[in-house]
Amino acid sequence: MHEVVVVGGGLAGLTAACRLVQRGRDVVVLEAQDRVGGRTSAEAVHGASVDVGGQWIGPGQRRMVALAVELDLPTFPTFDTGRKVLDLAGTVTTYAGSIPSLPPHQLAVLQATIWRIDSMAAKIPAANPWDSPHARAWDRRTLAGWMAASIPSRTVRDVMRAAIRVIFGAEPEELSLLHALWYIGQGGGILSLAEIRGAAQDSRFVDGAHAVAIALARRLGERVRLAEPVGEVIEEDGGVRVVTAQGDHRAARAIIAVPPHMAVRMHFSPALPPERDALMQRMPMGATVKFHALYDRPFWRDADLSGEMVCTHGPVSVVFDNTSADGAHAALVGFCVGAAARRMGSLSPDDQQAAVTEVLVRGFGPRAQAMAGFLAKDWAADPWARGCPTAGMPAGVMSIYGPALRRPCGRVHWCGTETALEWTGYMEGAVESGERAADEVFALLA
Amino acid sequence: MHEVVVVGGGLAGLTAACRLVQRGRDVVVLEAQDRVGGRTSAEAVHGASVDVGGQWIGPGQRRMVALAVELDLPTFPTFDTGRKVLDLAGTVTTYAGSIPSLPPHQLAVLQATIWRIDSMAAKIPAANPWDSPHARAWDRRTLAGWMAASIPSRTVRDVMRAAIRVIFGAEPEELSLLHALWYIGQGGGILSLAEIRGAAQDSRFVDGAHAVAIALARRLGERVRLAEPVGEVIEEDGGVRVVTAQGDHRAARAIIAVPPHMAVRMHFSPALPPERDALMQRMPMGATVKFHALYDRPFWRDADLSGEMVCTHGPVSVVFDNTSADGAHAALVGFCVGAAARRMGSLSPDDQQAAVTEVLVRGFGPRAQAMAGFLAKDWAADPWARGCPTAGMPAGVMSIYGPALRRPCGRVHWCGTETALEWTGYMEGAVESGERAADEVFALLA
Repeated sequence: MHEVVVVGGGLAGLTAACRLVQRGRDVVVLEAQDRVGGRTSAEAVHGASVDVGGQWIGPGQRRMVALAVELDLPTFPTFDTGRKVLDLAGTVTTYAGSIPSLPPHQLAVLQATIWRIDSMAAKIPAANPWDSPHARAWDRRTLAGWMAASIPSRTVRDVMRAAIRVIFGAEPEELSLLHALWYIGQGGGILSLAEIRGAAQDSRFVDGAHAVAIALARRLGERVRLAEPVGEVIEEDGGVRVVTAQGDHRAARAIIAVPPHMAVRMHFSPALPPERDALMQRMPMGATVKFHALYDRPFWRDADLSGEMVCTHGPVSVVFDNTSADGAHAALVGFCVGAAARRMGSLSPDDQQAAVTEVLVRGFGPRAQAMAGFLAKDWAADPWARGCPTAGMPAGVMSIYGPALRRPCGRVHWCGTETALEWTGYMEGAVESGERAADEVFALLA
Repeated sequence: MHEVVVVGGGLAGLTAACRLVQRGRDVVVLEAQDRVGGRTSAEAVHGASVDVGGQWIGPGQRRMVALAVELDLPTFPTFDTGRKVLDLAGTVTTYAGSIPSLPPHQLAVLQATIWRIDSMAAKIPAANPWDSPHARAWDRRTLAGWMAASIPSRTVRDVMRAAIRVIFGAEPEELSLLHALWYIGQGGGILSLAEIRGAAQDSRFVDGAHAVAIALARRLGERVRLAEPVGEVIEEDGGVRVVTAQGDHRAARAIIAVPPHMAVRMHFSPALPPERDALMQRMPMGATVKFHALYDRPFWRDADLSGEMVCTHGPVSVVFDNTSADGAHAALVGFCVGAAARRMGSLSPDDQQAAVTEVLVRGFGPRAQAMAGFLAKDWAADPWARGCPTAGMPAGVMSIYGPALRRPCGRVHWCGTETALEWTGYMEGAVESGERAADEVFALLA
């Protein structure tokens, strides 16, 4: 009999467990896989260890910044020196600064669009977006519908679409305007999510972001049980019994630290309330394939290119320099999203590499052909994530079912980056949600 | 070791099983509940047995019509004599015929809207809507977005919204235009879905629609195992092993006859392909509360009212006369949908009855207050349906993930009304999908 059982050993669950243990509580963490970290994970390619999941942090993410210091995990700035590449439906140009090389009138439209989105986002309360005065109206529209009606330039719409696709792992038509604005607002606005310097892609962990979860799990020691997927969560006898193939774990309360579309796959007894079940049916995980292309040296830097490339069409949406901190492993990292992720995921590794190579050659020249290594991770194929980076809400979900997002169901509490009040969808949001869930449960323990 | 294991004892699964047994195959049906029928079900109220789930059939539904004859289950016409009630945002009028009492210019808009929707729907192939020339464009829009842009009258939009809400159990913003058109086209157009005579609400079963599933299950006898919820579906040793709490069932092939949002809750090994998993994450079940209000006599008929009432706003969307075939049990039946279903579901039975009474008094006069019995079924609270009547697809789903809808995954085949090629969402669609899945599997058995 424990005080708290945490289901899920990603950043949210590990944070919740550490916080409760720090306060003297007896906790067990049940993780389905043979590793911790959830949507942060490391794999080897061409002698390098790379983050196949979440990897960046920014200065606005105070919890992750503090964790890096506390866990003694050094970070370094993402490389962003040089010009960036814009591939506008096949037409490649380069630009400096944070705004693409567009004609002045399109630039004005882009600036106005960013300003409008950020102003709307700023009006939405993080804790209860469904109560905002615009909730019903904004939830009735898709982000794509708003963009079509509000951005009077096809090119700017295409550029915005590329940004949105990478941020959410989804096409703008898959997202409610209300949910998208809530998400953007939590991260400090569009540029704060899309940019490198001072923004969400500001810094990387020298030893990879996956090291954070490993360090947290080390603190928890034997309390973390790997390879124990949870089948049932049963509330009985004034507590909860969580059933895995290895046996039962009893506790006073449970924290479910997996995304909604995975939580729905557990059997809850008593059955969860209708609004909670309906919400979990309505938060599909984004579709993202993240790839690493390794090279003998970062040849793009020779041409004064930063390695950043944005594509409005085609298989790849965005590319960044991802060379290791010591410079030993030159790399570009990129993302395929939505329909393109599905297509990329269906290809053989060789065909994936060929498709990516074609894009990189267009952006960075023929030297991009000489890859030393290639690794693509299709998160939709990962049986315990089934998508990445985050769960979105289609139109009509948040205003109706949103209030069930964090509301405990009896002795069952919810966390995970999708429930965050700051930086939802990011590692920072996972940590924030873990802290919140731990505090919520701590206050209720005898 | 069986030849086929069918998971789910609703109309789709029972049909598939009967068809295979008829052709000499060895089949077992595993049903989670202690009854068959899925989204058809009967309950008692004030001495009457009423269909709390699907109940109507129409002349265009040839399989259900044939089944009624074959199973010797008599049907009778839905009562529709008299004027209908339209509650337009609180303003109540009555009308004859199939078109509400609107001013001539609004009537013209309504007719044009129906014509446009039906023409677009007719262009979409039932088997592969994702291949239609308009697939991408129509899937990028919600039905609500299309309505806002294409119906130049707020009143007509409100009337159409009421019809759509009842048909899908969802708000138009929750639905992709492509998916909605595909669905409407399969049922023969908007009026064919919304009307009584000659349409989807034409007839009722004297002994209730649930009798169909019971009769099919009787044919299968011991082959149907009740109260055996399936936890795992494992492909191994050239067959499948389906695991329930009662033990293992081995077969050459499996037919999964539960809706996608329930299938996702089973554990599949090997893991399902990414596009199948992603699809199941993206087909939430509609939200419908169906209520029966019983009276000592059908008093509305005295005032030449048919019992049909359409409300554009408020807790109830539509009401029909539901008096028993022998006239012994006078009843009105009605539906609360989407956000209104959530609110209704959260009320106590007394408060539900009070909310419904207020609507019925507005439509049918003060005699509606004297209910002899009241029963409301919130399908979102049903642990094995988790919604009703059908699963919808939000914008951006069908064009990307639709091809996974019926595609077998190894030895695992899919049916259920959501996979139908005719009358998807209806009992007819369930039967059609069961026949198709049975034929698909039969052709592959040794």
